[in-house]
Amino acid sequence: VTPYLRVDVPRLHANIARVADRAAAAGVALRPHAKTHKCAEVARLQLAAGAVGLTVATLGEAEAFADAGVDDLLVAYPLWLTDAAAERVRRLASRTRLAIGCDSVAAATRAAELLRGSGAAHVVEVDRGHHRSGTTPADAGAVARAAVDGGLPVRGVFTFPGHSYAPGALRSAAADEAEALGVAARSLRDAGVEPEVVSGGSTPSLAGSLADRPAGTAGTADAAEDATTELRPGVYVFGDAQQWELGTTDPGDIALTCVATVVSHAGGRLVLDAGSKALGADRAGYATGWGRLPAYPDARVVLLSEHHAVVELAGAALPPLGSRVEVVPNHVCNAVNLADVLWADLDGDGARLDPWAVVARGRNG
Amino acid sequence: VTPYLRVDVPRLHANIARVADRAAAAGVALRPHAKTHKCAEVARLQLAAGAVGLTVATLGEAEAFADAGVDDLLVAYPLWLTDAAAERVRRLASRTRLAIGCDSVAAATRAAELLRGSGAAHVVEVDRGHHRSGTTPADAGAVARAAVDGGLPVRGVFTFPGHSYAPGALRSAAADEAEALGVAARSLRDAGVEPEVVSGGSTPSLAGSLADRPAGTAGTADAAEDATTELRPGVYVFGDAQQWELGTTDPGDIALTCVATVVSHAGGRLVLDAGSKALGADRAGYATGWGRLPAYPDARVVLLSEHHAVVELAGAALPPLGSRVEVVPNHVCNAVNLADVLWADLDGDGARLDPWAVVARGRNG
Repeated sequence: VTPYLRVDVPRLHANIARVADRAAAAGVALRPHAKTHKCAEVARLQLAAGAVGLTVATLGEAEAFADAGVDDLLVAYPLWLTDAAAERVRRLASRTRLAIGCDSVAAATRAAELLRGSGAAHVVEVDRGHHRSGTTPADAGAVARAAVDGGLPVRGVFTFPGHSYAPGALRSAAADEAEALGVAARSLRDAGVEPEVVSGGSTPSLAGSLADRPAGTAGTADAAEDATTELRPGVYVFGDAQQWELGTTDPGDIALTCVATVVSHAGGRLVLDAGSKALGADRAGYATGWGRLPAYPDARVVLLSEHHAVVELAGAALPPLGSRVEVVPNHVCNAVNLADVLWADLDGDGARLDPWAVVARGRNG
Repeated sequence: VTPYLRVDVPRLHANIARVADRAAAAGVALRPHAKTHKCAEVARLQLAAGAVGLTVATLGEAEAFADAGVDDLLVAYPLWLTDAAAERVRRLASRTRLAIGCDSVAAATRAAELLRGSGAAHVVEVDRGHHRSGTTPADAGAVARAAVDGGLPVRGVFTFPGHSYAPGALRSAAADEAEALGVAARSLRDAGVEPEVVSGGSTPSLAGSLADRPAGTAGTADAAEDATTELRPGVYVFGDAQQWELGTTDPGDIALTCVATVVSHAGGRLVLDAGSKALGADRAGYATGWGRLPAYPDARVVLLSEHHAVVELAGAALPPLGSRVEVVPNHVCNAVNLADVLWADLDGDGARLDPWAVVARGRNG
């Protein structure tokens, strides 16, 4: 039944191995963000390739991956703890190594009060450039101090260079990130808190973060210029049309596609049954359409509604009604969150398909 | 646990009653599109208010609503039938009155071959203006003829005026629709097929379709100027920020919101835990942001990521960390498709919340 999401497993393996090897060579720990795949099978491959643990965005994801046996989790999100949320954190911390994010003295004070003695740790979120959440790097020490004074251990700092999601922004975003993390790490030390973990890294900035980094110079929180000890890329496992168009993923490495059926040739255009309820409605300002077609690199998805993708083929012959065409979603994390199952194409040739449950689908709170 | 979707049940009742009354007064049948709510409880309210049946977009939705006891379904989509899909249609037709869409002679011929004697009927999709799928109105008769010649009964024609989703386009889209349906109905008659159903109507064009229509003049397929016998609005049950900004829904009638928690005041802005995985990533060209806040009509969601909505409050005081703020999604159909449950606020005051399962969530194929 189309539309469905297909994972090219050989490409998935290659993507996981390549980034693991590069991180190892640079002496940086990898803690991949599991929001991209929400899938126990992919998590196991990442951990088997040397990841120190997983990153998640919500307590629901943390619970799903703890259920799947993952024993080291970072909730890289500035949680505001209600009593019910604090109870969920305590239960999680009783069965897995756990750190949660926080970006203000108020939230740190409250979390310390509710979580003292639970085994959970805090990591301070700092912002440099993305302007979403996170304290300023210079204020990170005060947030850490509030947690420690309240009895909650602080493991370190993290940031998310989301502004690397723009054409040409890779190197500058990575440099901003390294600088912000360096300032934040010093701020913690000045407040008397030694940061064990200094964590950064989106998939686009990964290239910038790992490039020009002489082997062995990273991984030491002493190097003020680049204090990063850990990276948290998510999208690299699959890639998507955003990464393709940003130039941060080779189209030949993209490991997840949406398989769609040609349902109409109305108006002389290709109409597929994959719409925003299968691909997601994401369209960044720099995107050229609502997804890309590997078999037709010059084609563009010019109209997307809930169950229709209308494609202009740029001169190619229309594939027949009923034939199948693959679409790379713009933003793979949101496409995966729409599916109950990923169909794992074990050899990449369609011969053997295994269903992989999206165990954390919808676990967004 | 935030974020979650809250339905204001008194407003929902009022929206369903208002549109049912107006359709009844105009003599037009209502077949609401269930893709918006995917929820058996809402379907039952629509049917109790006089809807003749439901519209769905996929066989998966049809199966979910047949399971919920709905006995008259239109799949308003140009299905291309594989053998497996044809078997699903036959099973559905054995337990419910069923019509499926089709927009080409090739698809009609194939469907007739696979579905002959199943009890399923065909409805021809025509396009006028949206340029998504659908045959031209003048060719509708040929498509209908192919189905009838193959032994598949044809019930009529339908169109979707999706280009009404633009500012100021309401009246012209409704007029385009009426004209296209009139031409299509004549085309069927010229081909010797009497259209029992002539179906149109999106939520934005509803106002145009029902306005200026003297009671009793519609509902007769004889009136070539306005042959419409049936309307299929979806979004009207809940409304959303798109309808609010198009001016087709009064903000005071909006019956679905996403309840979010204030997690950060980073940068002096409001940061909520409702992102694109709860609200959907939809942002039409005319939209002023990624959703609207009923409590802060001048505020705008200026940044949306998977778990963050960053809001500029336009001068209002920041609500405290940990407080709750409601967000109206831009496109409610995609927000609902992300949720397993809608929380029905029975009195609209938060006192009694019932979980309504989104039974057709993810049933998009």
